[in-house]
Amino acid sequence: MKKGLLQSALIISLLGAATSASQAEVRIQGAIDFRESIMTTFKWYMGPMGSMVKGRMPFDAELFKSRAEGLVKATRLDLAEGYPKGSVGDSEAKPEIWENWDEFEAKIQSLRDEAAKLQEVAATGDEAAIKAQFGETGKVCGSCHKQFRSKK
Amino acid sequence: MKKGLLQSALIISLLGAATSASQAEVRIQGAIDFRESIMTTFKWYMGPMGSMVKGRMPFDAELFKSRAEGLVKATRLDLAEGYPKGSVGDSEAKPEIWENWDEFEAKIQSLRDEAAKLQEVAATGDEAAIKAQFGETGKVCGSCHKQFRSKK
Repeated sequence: MKKGLLQSALIISLLGAATSASQAEVRIQGAIDFRESIMTTFKWYMGPMGSMVKGRMPFDAELFKSRAEGLVKATRLDLAEGYPKGSVGDSEAKPEIWENWDEFEAKIQSLRDEAAKLQEVAATGDEAAIKAQFGETGKVCGSCHKQFRSKK
Repeated sequence: MKKGLLQSALIISLLGAATSASQAEVRIQGAIDFRESIMTTFKWYMGPMGSMVKGRMPFDAELFKSRAEGLVKATRLDLAEGYPKGSVGDSEAKPEIWENWDEFEAKIQSLRDEAAKLQEVAATGDEAAIKAQFGETGKVCGSCHKQFRSKK
C-alpha cells in the first residue's frame, strides 16, 4: 500500500513534469511563431523594394514609399519579445542570441533606425539615395542573420 | 519545318503561360503568408489577454497593458494589402471578401478602433472595464472570421 502510494505520487509528479514541459514547449512555439511572423512581414515589405533596387522590377517611387512605410510599422512590433531566454526550439535561432543579448537588441534597434531613414529618403523620391539607403537597411538584416541565425 | 516551328512556338507560349501562372501563385502565396503572419501576431497579443480575462492566468495589469499596446501596433500594418483580389489560394479566405470589399475593410478598421480603445482602457487598470473592452475587441475578430473565413 505504501509502495502503491509512492508509485502513484511518482506517476502524478512525472505527469505534472510532462505537462509543464509541454506547456513550456507550447509557449516557446508561440514565441517562435510570433518572431517568424514578424520576419515574414519584413519580407513582404523588403521583397518588392529589393526587386526595384536590383532592377528586376521597374522603379516605382510610390510603391517604394508605401513599402518603406509598412516596414517601419513592422519594425515597431517588439521583436525581442519573441525571443524568451533559450527559445531555440525548432528554429534557426542560435544560442549566441542570449549570450549577447545587448548586441542582439542593438541590432533590432539598428533595423528600426535604418528603416526610419529609408522611409524618410523614400519620401524624397531620390532614386539613387533610396537605393543606397535600402542597401544600408539590408546590411542590418544580413549582419544579424550572419551572427545569430544558423543556416538550415 | 513549318509544323516544327509552330510546335516550338506553342511550347514556348505554353511555357510562358506556365511561368506566369507560377509567378502569380508565388505572388498570391506571398500575400497569404503576409496576412497570416499578421494574424499570428494578433494571436500572440490576444492570447495572454484572453487567458487573463477567462481566469486561466492571474490578472496582471502591466502585462495586459503591454499586450494591448502590441496589438494596436500590429493592427497598424496594412492587413487589407494581404488580400489581393481573388487570392484564396491555399487559405481559409472566402471569395465573399472581394464581393464585399468595403465591408471587409470596415471590419479591419473596427479592429483598429476597438484595439485602440482597449489600449486606452488597459492604461486605466480598471479590471472590469478592461475585460469588457477585451470582449468587444474579440467580437470584431469573431464577426470577421464568421463572415469571411471558411472553417478548415
